[in-house]
Amino acid sequence: MSEGASRHQSTARIEAFSDGVIAIIVTIMVLELHAPAEAFASGDFNTVLATLGPKLLVYALSFLVVAIMLLNHHMLMRAATHATNALYWWNAYLLFWMSLIPLATDVLGDAPFAPMPVGFYGAILTMNAMGFTFLHRSAACIGDKDGVLDDIHREVVRKNWVSTMIYASTVPLAFVSPYISLAIFVIIPLLYFIPEFTPRLHRN
Amino acid sequence: MSEGASRHQSTARIEAFSDGVIAIIVTIMVLELHAPAEAFASGDFNTVLATLGPKLLVYALSFLVVAIMLLNHHMLMRAATHATNALYWWNAYLLFWMSLIPLATDVLGDAPFAPMPVGFYGAILTMNAMGFTFLHRSAACIGDKDGVLDDIHREVVRKNWVSTMIYASTVPLAFVSPYISLAIFVIIPLLYFIPEFTPRLHRN
Amino acid sequence: MSEGASRHQSTARIEAFSDGVIAIIVTIMVLELHAPAEAFASGDFNTVLATLGPKLLVYALSFLVVAIMLLNHHMLMRAATHATNALYWWNAYLLFWMSLIPLATDVLGDAPFAPMPVGFYGAILTMNAMGFTFLHRSAACIGDKDGVLDDIHREVVRKNWVSTMIYASTVPLAFVSPYISLAIFVIIPLLYFIPEFTPRLHRN
Amino acid sequence: MSEGASRHQSTARIEAFSDGVIAIIVTIMVLELHAPAEAFASGDFNTVLATLGPKLLVYALSFLVVAIMLLNHHMLMRAATHATNALYWWNAYLLFWMSLIPLATDVLGDAPFAPMPVGFYGAILTMNAMGFTFLHRSAACIGDKDGVLDDIHREVVRKNWVSTMIYASTVPLAFVSPYISLAIFVIIPLLYFIPEFTPRLHRN
Repeated sequence: MSEGASRHQSTARIEAFSDGVIAIIVTIMVLELHAPAEAFASGDFNTVLATLGPKLLVYALSFLVVAIMLLNHHMLMRAATHATNALYWWNAYLLFWMSLIPLATDVLGDAPFAPMPVGFYGAILTMNAMGFTFLHRSAACIGDKDGVLDDIHREVVRKNWVSTMIYASTVPLAFVSPYISLAIFVIIPLLYFIPEFTPRLHRN
Repeated sequence: MSEGASRHQSTARIEAFSDGVIAIIVTIMVLELHAPAEAFASGDFNTVLATLGPKLLVYALSFLVVAIMLLNHHMLMRAATHATNALYWWNAYLLFWMSLIPLATDVLGDAPFAPMPVGFYGAILTMNAMGFTFLHRSAACIGDKDGVLDDIHREVVRKNWVSTMIYASTVPLAFVSPYISLAIFVIIPLLYFIPEFTPRLHRN
Repeated sequence: MSEGASRHQSTARIEAFSDGVIAIIVTIMVLELHAPAEAFASGDFNTVLATLGPKLLVYALSFLVVAIMLLNHHMLMRAATHATNALYWWNAYLLFWMSLIPLATDVLGDAPFAPMPVGFYGAILTMNAMGFTFLHRSAACIGDKDGVLDDIHREVVRKNWVSTMIYASTVPLAFVSPYISLAIFVIIPLLYFIPEFTPRLHRN
Repeated sequence: MSEGASRHQSTARIEAFSDGVIAIIVTIMVLELHAPAEAFASGDFNTVLATLGPKLLVYALSFLVVAIMLLNHHMLMRAATHATNALYWWNAYLLFWMSLIPLATDVLGDAPFAPMPVGFYGAILTMNAMGFTFLHRSAACIGDKDGVLDDIHREVVRKNWVSTMIYASTVPLAFVSPYISLAIFVIIPLLYFIPEFTPRLHRN
């Protein structure tokens, strides 16, 4: 059996399913952006801005977080040469926590400066960062084992744990000052903007 | 025509469509997790936990059930060498019952200890287990016919009927004690965690 | 360029997009099946049956209609050897009318025996049957032109026009007696259960 | 590694993800078409037409806009021989603005002749046209560089900037007369009906 065919039978459906779930996660968040119909119809710009503005900004932030996760997911899956049950379940574990991002986005969009919504958003992102680390570890174990890549993987896993820790700190910090946590929510994605596997990308 | 091309024309679109529907089923359940906006904004942790807690646990259970079904669906479709109308319709029959899992999840999440929601959830899972058995039988009939695989299939179909029966028992049991049925809902997925076709997976 | 590659570049994305839209159409209908939470929690079986029963039956009917359309869509796309702009737009035209099936299902599920909901459901199905006929004609024009297939196509297009006419008749008939139209809604899918292209399927 | 395999690893998942998001965008708009249940049940045709009519027309317009964007997206992605991070992010940028089309459609459908909803719809379409121009520029840069294609690309990018400008004009014009902006919303898609890359399509 050719390499292409065996890959198709192994990781293709996991990738397709993940892409599907992530596509729905991204788009479902828009359904929560209930537009203030009366304010729009009557031309009340201030009410529109006050109700829609924060929700749109939080949605944009979550969209960026999910887009970064998807890009890294693409890179990560390329590392796995074939599917295993462990890979399937760590991927499902990650998708479970990703599927709660729309809920956390909705909660944060409703009250973006209240401690508990900020803490809840931080807790969900913490679980996502942790889930990503587990999936990365699992994918790296079944990938090809050349010394160079192993070093990259070890570095990425270390970087993932650091960002998991930083996200975890936003939960208690939200009750000190929501603004610190919100700042962290914005800064972390910007640091991740450059994807993990950049060298591997150019190697192909 | 090569084997790869003929497979693409036969089961590929059934698989892609199933993956799409299952991805949506999983994610649509999140839309029913209406967050208590006021309790979140005012920091009322007890209300948040009381309204969101049970719903999140039931969602996690349904997510696990659907993830197990998807994994087994992947394995099962690998057994089918080409698509037939029977396979298409048994698959559609299964997807119909899977599409009702979000409804049952919503109902159970609203009142997780009331007899009728528990019975309804059990009834929907019974129909799903039955649908899976029918699809398995259909896929096995058109798969390659070597003695070893047939024995595996016979064993899997037997195992499926047993779990269908156990799920069916949760419907009357819910009216005796919802807790017994809830325990069964949790135990059955854990037994299925190891997928059906494990030997075949490693054969490739 | 190989035949496989050229097909991938031509109809693959149209098929993938159609599968995606149809998967969402099927599953979105479930979101309209609002379960009566209080009746479920209090164990009021009659209220549950009265509110959920008709909606579930109408949903099952729409699910069957969409599943038949999807199966025929698979067959039909196999006839087209490559994509054209005409094929893309007739497909988009069909998907537009298919996307209104959840709306018609919701309307009919709320009042299954009232003339206007029945007529509305009939009108949407008429537009779908017509859209399917147009798409079929477009796909057949760019398919391979051997005499046998042309006869099949001519027969299928004729059959499609007949069912379009029958669906169209349900709109005025709904205002005479909704029950006649409802009977037609049930009978037509059963006649279509055996897909159009059966001979072609076995030819490959 | 063959060209087909390397393309699969590069743009295939971007295309699949885009198709998924666009399929959901199209279908999610239907969820906002809340049917007036009482008017339907009581057969009040005028109320049905008054509440559902404008929403259906705006939905049809948005469906056409998204279908044109999808077709051009297919053409555009064919120009890119492999994926880059820039392509991924310009695509994500476009999808972000596309994901707001359902929101703008909902707002416009509720009050199709009020200045602010018309202006909001125009603003979202402006951002989409701009996003498309950026993505086109990015895809053309990594496509094959023969003189003929470059000229086509330059022409397309120029055409895109013109339509971006026209869309941008609908925002202030909505506050002069919503009818002018609405006319532009209808005319622009008709001009785009013939896709950008038509010569390239026939080249393959």
